[in-house]
Amino acid sequence: MSTVERDKAKAGSNGNGKPYKVIGTRPIRHDGVDKVTGRAKYGADIHPTGLIYGVVLRSPHAHAKIKSIDVSKALALPGVRAVVTHKDLREPGDRILELGEGAVNLRELSNNVLAADKVLYKGHAVAAIAADTIHIAEEAAGLIKVDYEILPSVLDVEAAMNSGAPLLHANLFTDELGQKATQPSNVAKHFRFETGEIEKGFAKAKLVIEREFRTATVHQGYIEPHNATALWNADGHITVWTSTQGAFSVRQQVAELVDVPISHVKVIPMEIGGGFGGKIRVYLEPVAAILSKRTGRPVKVLMNRADVFEGTGPTPGSYIRVKLGVDAQGMITAGQAYMAYEAGGYPGSPIGAGAMCIFACYNIPNGRIDGYDVVVNKPQTSAYRAPGATNAAFALETVVDEICTQLKLDPLEFRLKNAAREGTRRVDGPVFPRVGMIESVEAIQSSEHWKTPLTGKNRGRGVASGFWFNCGLKSAVSATVNPDGNVSLVEGSTDIGGSRTGIAMQLAETLGIAAEDVIPTVGDTDSVGYNDITGGSRVTFATGYAAYEAARDIQRQMVGRAAQLWEVDPSQVTCEQGSFIGPEGKKFTFKELAALVNKTGEPVVGRGSVDPEGCGGAFATHVVDVEVDPETGKVQILRYTASQDVGTAIHPSYVEGQIQGGAVQGIGWGLNEEYFYDAQGTMKNATFLDYRIPTCYDLPFIDTIIVEVPNPGHPYGVRGVGEVPIIPPPAALANAIAQAVGVRMTQLPMSPPRVLHEILAKKS
Amino acid sequence: MSTVERDKAKAGSNGNGKPYKVIGTRPIRHDGVDKVTGRAKYGADIHPTGLIYGVVLRSPHAHAKIKSIDVSKALALPGVRAVVTHKDLREPGDRILELGEGAVNLRELSNNVLAADKVLYKGHAVAAIAADTIHIAEEAAGLIKVDYEILPSVLDVEAAMNSGAPLLHANLFTDELGQKATQPSNVAKHFRFETGEIEKGFAKAKLVIEREFRTATVHQGYIEPHNATALWNADGHITVWTSTQGAFSVRQQVAELVDVPISHVKVIPMEIGGGFGGKIRVYLEPVAAILSKRTGRPVKVLMNRADVFEGTGPTPGSYIRVKLGVDAQGMITAGQAYMAYEAGGYPGSPIGAGAMCIFACYNIPNGRIDGYDVVVNKPQTSAYRAPGATNAAFALETVVDEICTQLKLDPLEFRLKNAAREGTRRVDGPVFPRVGMIESVEAIQSSEHWKTPLTGKNRGRGVASGFWFNCGLKSAVSATVNPDGNVSLVEGSTDIGGSRTGIAMQLAETLGIAAEDVIPTVGDTDSVGYNDITGGSRVTFATGYAAYEAARDIQRQMVGRAAQLWEVDPSQVTCEQGSFIGPEGKKFTFKELAALVNKTGEPVVGRGSVDPEGCGGAFATHVVDVEVDPETGKVQILRYTASQDVGTAIHPSYVEGQIQGGAVQGIGWGLNEEYFYDAQGTMKNATFLDYRIPTCYDLPFIDTIIVEVPNPGHPYGVRGVGEVPIIPPPAALANAIAQAVGVRMTQLPMSPPRVLHEILAKKS
Repeated sequence: MSTVERDKAKAGSNGNGKPYKVIGTRPIRHDGVDKVTGRAKYGADIHPTGLIYGVVLRSPHAHAKIKSIDVSKALALPGVRAVVTHKDLREPGDRILELGEGAVNLRELSNNVLAADKVLYKGHAVAAIAADTIHIAEEAAGLIKVDYEILPSVLDVEAAMNSGAPLLHANLFTDELGQKATQPSNVAKHFRFETGEIEKGFAKAKLVIEREFRTATVHQGYIEPHNATALWNADGHITVWTSTQGAFSVRQQVAELVDVPISHVKVIPMEIGGGFGGKIRVYLEPVAAILSKRTGRPVKVLMNRADVFEGTGPTPGSYIRVKLGVDAQGMITAGQAYMAYEAGGYPGSPIGAGAMCIFACYNIPNGRIDGYDVVVNKPQTSAYRAPGATNAAFALETVVDEICTQLKLDPLEFRLKNAAREGTRRVDGPVFPRVGMIESVEAIQSSEHWKTPLTGKNRGRGVASGFWFNCGLKSAVSATVNPDGNVSLVEGSTDIGGSRTGIAMQLAETLGIAAEDVIPTVGDTDSVGYNDITGGSRVTFATGYAAYEAARDIQRQMVGRAAQLWEVDPSQVTCEQGSFIGPEGKKFTFKELAALVNKTGEPVVGRGSVDPEGCGGAFATHVVDVEVDPETGKVQILRYTASQDVGTAIHPSYVEGQIQGGAVQGIGWGLNEEYFYDAQGTMKNATFLDYRIPTCYDLPFIDTIIVEVPNPGHPYGVRGVGEVPIIPPPAALANAIAQAVGVRMTQLPMSPPRVLHEILAKKS
Repeated sequence: MSTVERDKAKAGSNGNGKPYKVIGTRPIRHDGVDKVTGRAKYGADIHPTGLIYGVVLRSPHAHAKIKSIDVSKALALPGVRAVVTHKDLREPGDRILELGEGAVNLRELSNNVLAADKVLYKGHAVAAIAADTIHIAEEAAGLIKVDYEILPSVLDVEAAMNSGAPLLHANLFTDELGQKATQPSNVAKHFRFETGEIEKGFAKAKLVIEREFRTATVHQGYIEPHNATALWNADGHITVWTSTQGAFSVRQQVAELVDVPISHVKVIPMEIGGGFGGKIRVYLEPVAAILSKRTGRPVKVLMNRADVFEGTGPTPGSYIRVKLGVDAQGMITAGQAYMAYEAGGYPGSPIGAGAMCIFACYNIPNGRIDGYDVVVNKPQTSAYRAPGATNAAFALETVVDEICTQLKLDPLEFRLKNAAREGTRRVDGPVFPRVGMIESVEAIQSSEHWKTPLTGKNRGRGVASGFWFNCGLKSAVSATVNPDGNVSLVEGSTDIGGSRTGIAMQLAETLGIAAEDVIPTVGDTDSVGYNDITGGSRVTFATGYAAYEAARDIQRQMVGRAAQLWEVDPSQVTCEQGSFIGPEGKKFTFKELAALVNKTGEPVVGRGSVDPEGCGGAFATHVVDVEVDPETGKVQILRYTASQDVGTAIHPSYVEGQIQGGAVQGIGWGLNEEYFYDAQGTMKNATFLDYRIPTCYDLPFIDTIIVEVPNPGHPYGVRGVGEVPIIPPPAALANAIAQAVGVRMTQLPMSPPRVLHEILAKKS
């Protein structure tokens, strides 16, 4: 059913048949007008008085020692005010800084921001210049003389794991499952998840299939490049304006790298033109700060598109081997995975999350997962929407599909039989509470799309499922009652996808007012309680939860105010559907009482502060119809439907938008996107002309089916939406291609040359 | 004792011998560096993208009907984008809007912002133009043709009260002490306060003196002119940047005048270059808003100095008659006052406050006060530091001094005998709690200044006391605990005199951290709970109280966190001097526990929201030595000492600064300042060259004596400081002049020509 049809069907029942007045409706987002009229201020839009500009000099080599840096000519250029290098940053040692979603080693972060003795990828930052104009700064960058000793580089995970591979870090001695390493390697981590008895499990299987898969490095592809403007004030306090997924996370990182107390850094989060996980780690912010310290001026540093591709974290290329056993009844008996993810220049790929997700859609009684985090001469990877899970699902879901084909099992029936459900234990340990894998499959099963037969030559239909665990983490909001009955809400979660409205709606629902009656503001780090990053599909869950708590706090105070006005005991006043009910038929609506608040006592301010445990994992199942051109290998998507258990859809339009956006990014990853490197480790397609993300010309309308299995761990049942939809597309596309032209794709992207190659190989 | 000597004397006891670690110290103000380096952003410093400029056309006549306004030529000028007049504002009717300190009639406010059918003073705003540059806007102002019918004007209160005076408002029928008026007049209000039996009281007196006094219109003289920048967004939400004493008050007024819900106006308070009561009522903000609505652009409107003098509220000129009776023992038996204050063009002089204060320093068993609020063709008056009280004290304290002279009573002994104290009932009703009138007098009595005889020809010493009741009103703050143990504090009180630090210190004291460990921010109206204006000497009292409550809220949460970490019941944890104490010697300092907060649960956010009742009135006694030049009448101040009961001095330097600043403003009012009008009602000295405020060349160092009689209604005993010190100076100077040259000055300012006139009159 299309979005429009679903809306019609739901008219009158407020979208979900639940007793909500605001949740499930589709108000216009609070920041909408500012964004469509151009009033919204992004990172590039801030120009403090006296602003000067910074430019970062980047390494032309993928792997080299820095023997010396001579900045004298650059400094002598008129208009140049400062040149900084790694030594201007604090050397924080090997401490680990938790960033909410993931963690960073501060020494490595510091080296990634400005390289110390080695550059580990082409594009690695080496020095930075502040000058009166960006043009002078760029000219000065060309005058910096860096003496490099070029080293051999290694660009993919398999090569990097070979003995004899060039080593990025001479001191990377990784304990191997408890075994002390005696030699350094490029393996930063190896861990194993295990459940049941893997050998016995495979012994029970009627069919065992083992395949290996490779995926390319891809980038989040956010439209807005990274940016940072900083002012190091004369009192030692620093203000940073930046577009980020986590103002508090930037605050932590900057404070550590420039060596000031954390509260002396104020981060003002500007509007953000996309992040998808890539705007959590800092790149420019500490550089802008130290340039400002050196010059006494506010300094703005911006990336261009090539800087973004070459200097910020993409998601890892990977090598994955999956082995799956199924018995005669079509039940999975055992699953094994070997997963090696590229970390980039420094450790920290999302291999952990990938391993948590790879088998999570199914009940795997006997399972083993070996995960490897491997450094290569590419930019340090960052989170990207369900980080690690898409690579994993591409491998597993392709093997599942092959099993279904061989055993002639309906792929949805197979999923329903083997689906993870309440009580299923994941291979990595946790036991599922109530989850919606089954419902996400059933939604596809009963969809128009699935029920409509696909006919025509070279056409195929594929399905795939995906799982993301979602995050909780810390959020805090405050909310104040205005005399007109509207409520001002201050939250600290950067709004990367309509979360301002999603949070405001939960506050409104609780208070019994309209979404438009909430005035939401994203506060800076001095103006709101600590908030973890916007990521992990946690904000609508956790910050929404905080908004619920703030509303309850407001209601408690207003119950007291009503009691005071009615001259009754507060215990005689209840709050029902947002109204205040007293004895003898006394009643105030929220707005009526709000108008009296400031006339009867202190202002009413509610606070909500949470660190909730009950985040609920989410499942998606996608179905895609494709037609493959056998002469070019081009894959045309004919129809696409994505179902997903979101718990409760707070704002269905944004849920649909998240599902559609995620699916499109997964499609790009599946069909087109990849970093092309030459032998010297230079990316050859670092522009949006050559790095091809899908456009509307490449895509049909993405139909969405919202499945709602409320999360028992959230007052409104929210699970989180943003991550899951990117996971199934590559696998669903591979399965559709297999049906269309009979070739099993095991490498991403499934670009025309590669598909054609398989078609031709099959023919010959 | 000088400030420096006092500091020495107090060294080691932290300034006040009380058990405080932060209160009573003198940390550098948090906004200090920004203000001395020029980084602080004032109202004129904001330049949103696309900014255009507004200019206000003002009436050249003191009193006229507006017959028509032709804006066609102005609109035709290239670069002009909009012209607005009164009809572009909402006509809100005769509703009263409470502004915290005082109230406004919205119809009158609207007419004062842009005149409807009449102009009531020279400088009254008539129309406003928005254009691409300020020069075009100014040129366009000259092209607006206003057809005025000039009316006779009345410029002083006594003339205005005469029957037959030109009437400003045809419909001002004022009930006269319960009597329904049958004729309109210029008297907007007449009220009476009464206690005891006035006739019997005077009958008991040995000496009765009655005198009449006149004071001139004077201006607050803040350095920064009024300013407003507004953006009326396409979604109907308005942002206003302005320097104001009350962002929430501006929000209320703008919302009413431009007819949007109050929460659709966001006021961002910029730093303020002085207010003293004059930046509470709006002038430019609604104009900027409607110009923005009409043009779709952000619009900035600024005043020049003449606009400020002629178009904003000065404090009233007044006529006061005081009659005081004293018995043979020197005890006051009765006091009577007739007080008529100029309201300016619209009703609303501070006559009420003046009447509350006039007799408040003394126990007056039988008293009567008649107060009159009288409209005249001058700008509508505004609050100015202890509004109304300085005029009143000039009258009363001069009469008190004359009585002391005639009865040969020591003026301090007289005050001690008759001083208001705990239990004294004011003529206007309230009974004093513990107050410090006696202590303020004793402090002068034991001062070096008083003990040092004054010798020399034409020299005299005068003393005077003053009272201000101080305000409580509403304040709300929020405070969040950072991992470095520092605390971010968001307050909504505009900082006009170091209150950021004064509030932060109370938070710090309660939490057991340093003042520098608090990061204070003044929030906008969307980002903090409702706060009444900064005025009435309420902020250090009430917002400080809110900070105390926020700190307590933080401590309650941190007690729970400590209990969780120690695995004990929260009842086993106490908070002592900011540290958390558990069983068996367990202890966390605040900073130790703060570092663990985000690792153990939700962020800790404290809120404080108050509407306190216990604001404590404050008393000051000043002594001044002068030398009068008998040939020119010039009064030279030789020495000046001000004592004041402040309850508790949170930051003694700012207390001293407030006392010094208030005294200097009182000296200016007493000796030099006045509006000179010509017969047509045009102010002839509307520049700082001609309107003479005291400079450092005119003044000795103002010695201060901080008296601390803690206010029992505040957790740290705060009373409020800013208002009282402006009250005694004119009277003290008059009394000193009397002693020096034997003339009793009864008119302000006591400028050289006027003093010379009295000297010559006495001689002849």
